[in-house]
Amino acid sequence: MSDFDRIKRHAERSRTERDELYAVLDAGMVATLATVVDGLPLAVPMLYARVGDRVLLHGSTGAGSLRQVAAGAPAALSVAMIDGVVVADNLFNSSANYRSAVVRGTLTAVPAEEASAALDALSERLIPGRGVEVAPHSRKELVATLAVALPILDGHWTVKVRTGGPGEPDVDPDAWAGVVPMHTVYGDPIPASWVAEGTPIPASVSRLRMNAGDRAP
Amino acid sequence: MSDFDRIKRHAERSRTERDELYAVLDAGMVATLATVVDGLPLAVPMLYARVGDRVLLHGSTGAGSLRQVAAGAPAALSVAMIDGVVVADNLFNSSANYRSAVVRGTLTAVPAEEASAALDALSERLIPGRGVEVAPHSRKELVATLAVALPILDGHWTVKVRTGGPGEPDVDPDAWAGVVPMHTVYGDPIPASWVAEGTPIPASVSRLRMNAGDRAP
Repeated sequence: MSDFDRIKRHAERSRTERDELYAVLDAGMVATLATVVDGLPLAVPMLYARVGDRVLLHGSTGAGSLRQVAAGAPAALSVAMIDGVVVADNLFNSSANYRSAVVRGTLTAVPAEEASAALDALSERLIPGRGVEVAPHSRKELVATLAVALPILDGHWTVKVRTGGPGEPDVDPDAWAGVVPMHTVYGDPIPASWVAEGTPIPASVSRLRMNAGDRAP
Repeated sequence: MSDFDRIKRHAERSRTERDELYAVLDAGMVATLATVVDGLPLAVPMLYARVGDRVLLHGSTGAGSLRQVAAGAPAALSVAMIDGVVVADNLFNSSANYRSAVVRGTLTAVPAEEASAALDALSERLIPGRGVEVAPHSRKELVATLAVALPILDGHWTVKVRTGGPGEPDVDPDAWAGVVPMHTVYGDPIPASWVAEGTPIPASVSRLRMNAGDRAP
């Protein structure tokens, strides 16, 4: 194999892995943002959205932890989902199928002129298509929000996916072994108390149930 | 209200909150362990189990990140689950129902004599009742595993739960608003390729599906 092929192959593998990273980030709904404050680890669960090569997060302008990281502190963002229980013939080899992603970098504040698009992206992640059904964010809402971005830079992320069944039996080849898949599903929409009977459910909300297989919390 | 009542009430509330913390920790299956290495945040998704007032984690004795924290580095463990999408009449008030827990402290290695019980607890979390169906962990398996514990100390944890619907409408009182619940469910068990047809599914595996409502990844 020539050096050129090696580089090309490596680039292809990198691209494939980045696609895999994006798929995991896009499937998750909640991340843990880890930062360092006064030398101690700080972990904050947060909603997020990936847009292009950035992960977007938002919080209130009053929220302490996000302000600290927005100022340029290093951060690591972790997303993990369990896809199934892997049952082996013994305890030790039993495990879980999962998808996980970790992105490391420095959070930066999203400039004011991009804040509206960032908030839209976060809403879109939660309820795809909702943005076209309702009014855009107001000026007041934008001012009350601090949006931050974590760039996804080469060499600064990890994606891990475990699929499939247990390894060959160690102890008892006649025992049942296999996988119990886990899925996230949406239930029936529950209207708020003030919603009049017969009020149509928005298309974006109806669509959530249909696309459930693609998403996991 | 007397001071005594105040203290008593505070103690009751603390106990209630600790119960709530335990409920969230017990419902989750995957946590993010955040630590600090060379001044930078490290985030590692991990399986875990709460036993009493400790969170147990395990990794291979060769795994770098767990060795570093086992040596006494400070850590923060985060667990978060999304329970539903909260649909408001506008984008800004749309949100998610969730349960989250963060435990802060210093990880300690589990002594060799407790390692077997710790591994059992971790297996029990994944497949409750599996431990009585199969042989105990072997000496070799125990040696290959590093179990660590994070104590749950008063004042060193946070639990947050959001339930219910959106706030009163801001923009359009006639619009549909409400909640779309999310649940985790188990699918049909899939046997490994070498499992003979007719091999009975273990009771622990059958029970997973029945108890799905209590668990979330």
